[in-house]
Formats: sequence, C-alpha cells, structure tokens
Amino acid sequence: MRHVDRRGAHCASASMKCGVDKAMKIVLASGSPRRRALLQMIGIEDFRVIPADDEEEILPGLSPGQTVSSIALQKAKIVSRLCDSADIIIAADTLVYLNGRPIAKPGSDEEAAEMLKELSGRRHSVYTGVVLLKGDVHVSGVEVTDVYFREISDREISAYVKTGEPMDKAGAYAAQGRAAVFIERIEGEFFNVMGLPLCRLSTMLRDFGVII
Amino acid sequence: MRHVDRRGAHCASASMKCGVDKAMKIVLASGSPRRRALLQMIGIEDFRVIPADDEEEILPGLSPGQTVSSIALQKAKIVSRLCDSADIIIAADTLVYLNGRPIAKPGSDEEAAEMLKELSGRRHSVYTGVVLLKGDVHVSGVEVTDVYFREISDREISAYVKTGEPMDKAGAYAAQGRAAVFIERIEGEFFNVMGLPLCRLSTMLRDFGVII
Repeated sequence: MRHVDRRGAHCASASMKCGVDKAMKIVLASGSPRRRALLQMIGIEDFRVIPADDEEEILPGLSPGQTVSSIALQKAKIVSRLCDSADIIIAADTLVYLNGRPIAKPGSDEEAAEMLKELSGRRHSVYTGVVLLKGDVHVSGVEVTDVYFREISDREISAYVKTGEPMDKAGAYAAQGRAAVFIERIEGEFFNVMGLPLCRLSTMLRDFGVII
Repeated sequence: MRHVDRRGAHCASASMKCGVDKAMKIVLASGSPRRRALLQMIGIEDFRVIPADDEEEILPGLSPGQTVSSIALQKAKIVSRLCDSADIIIAADTLVYLNGRPIAKPGSDEEAAEMLKELSGRRHSVYTGVVLLKGDVHVSGVEVTDVYFREISDREISAYVKTGEPMDKAGAYAAQGRAAVFIERIEGEFFNVMGLPLCRLSTMLRDFGVII
C-alpha cells in the first residue's frame, strides 16, 4: 500500500459536492454515533457506516500519535475489504493520555469515578488519528488537543457518573455533555475531543478531491 | 446595587438541585436558542427565558472585557424588573474582536463574506461577559477564547454563506455548525465561542448556591 502525505495525494476524482458523485461513496469506518453526527454537522449527509471491529492490534513502543494513527489505519484496512475501490473510507481512533499514559474507557461506575478524580485539576491530552483510504492510497493525520479540567469535587463526580455519560467514553467524560462544566480550557481543535478533528478532516478530504 | 466578587457571594439559598427549590427560578435573560440549548446540555432544564431587548448602551472607552461585562449587567438589570427577587437571572453578552476591533453580526450575505475573509488565516478573540443577578446582588465574569481560522478559500466562504448560518452570528460563523471545519485551533473555553462559557457559569452558580 502506498502512503502519500497530505499534500501529495493525487488520487482524487473530479472535485465534487460530497457524496453526489455516483462513482464513489464515503464510508465511515466507525460505529460512534458522535462521529456520525459530526460528519452530518459539516454537511456530509450521504455516507455509509461500516464499523471496524474492535480487535485492532496495539503495537508496543509507539508514541501516542503513532498509536492512534496505526489503529486508525488498521480500522480503515479492515473496512476496505467490504468496500468498492472507488469508496473513500474515513477511519479514526481517539485516545486520552494523562502524564503519557493512556486512559481507557471505564468498565464500571467506580472506574469512571477514579478516572475523573485523576483528571480533576489537571491537563490531559486527546489524540485522534485520522486515515482516509481509497483503493491502495491512504493519507493520515494526527490531531492533539490539550484539555484542562478545573478541580471537581467528589460530589460533582458522583453526580456526573450517575448520569451514565462516562460509560462509553475514553477518559470517562463527554465534552459535549454535562462534563462541559469541568473543562476550564482547551488548546487545540475542539471536535477532536469528541473523536473527529473536523478542520483536519476537511483538508484531508480536499486532498482526495472532496470539497465539503 | 452591591457587587460581590465570585468568591465573596453569600446570598445563596440552601444548596439545591437546580430549579428544584420552589422559592427561586433560574431566568435566562437571552433569546439565543444556543444559550438555551447549552443550559439544557448541562442539566438545567427548569428555567424561564426572558430576552433582554437589544438596546443596551455601549459605553465608550471600555476594554473588550469591560464592554461585554457591562452589557451583560445591563441585560440582567432590564430583565430583573420582570422577575421575583428570589430569582437568579443569567445574562450574557458575546463579542468577537479582530485586532482589537469588534466584529458585529453581518447585515447581509456580502457583509458575512467580508467578515469571513477577514477571519481567514488569522486569530480572533471571543469575549463573553456573564452576570448572575439575584435581588440586589450580582456576580460577573468574563471569558476570552482565542480562535484560529485556517486559510479559507473564496469558494468555501461563498458555499458557507449560502447555508444561511452566518446571518445571526457575531463574526458570521457558528463554531458548532459547518464553520467547524475552518477552526484549526482554539485556546480557551469552547462553549464560550457559542455564547455561554459553561465552566465559568457553573462555578458562578455554585457561588449562588446552585449545584448543577
């Protein structure tokens, strides 16, 4: 598989309004309802969703950026087997890192509360790797956003955990939900924290000939 | 009218779940559907909306922070005449500044396109002043978020203006809409860019005895 950097991509079909060209389809290789909603928010309506299964291999010794990038590429490749070679596959992987250590999705309310306690009053980093794959060409990008939580009390943590929001979220919170009140400041792209860096995605799509 | 700083507020009724205490109501002094949706997003469901009319006086010689803060206080005072003294009034004013100059809401598609052209490839700052007013006590705060647009083409601007999104927005864009693809980076609170800094609001409400 050839890899081209973002500026070098020349596999593009004619510039088109997204999803209108009958020869290709956009495929979102993710079951995340948030990623689906974000694509729709920026005007991409006509796409298929084919979730990549969750057995991506995490290679040891990789940096956070290399890790999310490599997992996103694995997801894209898995889904490409079910697609036409003219389709553009969008795959993404998001991981939350605190002090260089990844924070997974919580397995229980107790784990969610522990994670939120760790994030309280501290900065953490959200990494998303994005891969666009079409035929045998792919482009990839990594976006990092630093997120600063204010100090949050045990009572706030407990009330937040009870809402159920933390359970399927990396880092045990949803920036676009009630946890918004915990986020004092971010540095980077906001929608990256929700799992899809939209600005970066738009320039990557442009390199594939898709104008949104 | 007494002014107390955030830490000094002691007008609070007993700590309560928001909106449950029958003695007080939260009143949003804004007709903005975005601010309404943001309050609901953080779990504040039970509030009245009383928009302040738009004839606030802008005093000359004020800094951006003093300007939004002063307009928010004017809005709160206007609406307080229609409220009970036990009500907590939330008022906010948001202005977009580019190179120290405020950018208003566009009056036409052409103005919207000009504004977006000015923002292209540059940093601008979004200021929101927030005031909570209860009886004769108020607290106020100002949040600033720096927003960095990537370079956007005339074609992108024209397509965006056609969506109609820019028309009622300060700076001619909605961060939570299609313009998300223009925003390369922010530094500060994201929801401030949408008109209501939720983290700051939550700590101000706490000082008024409202735990959300």
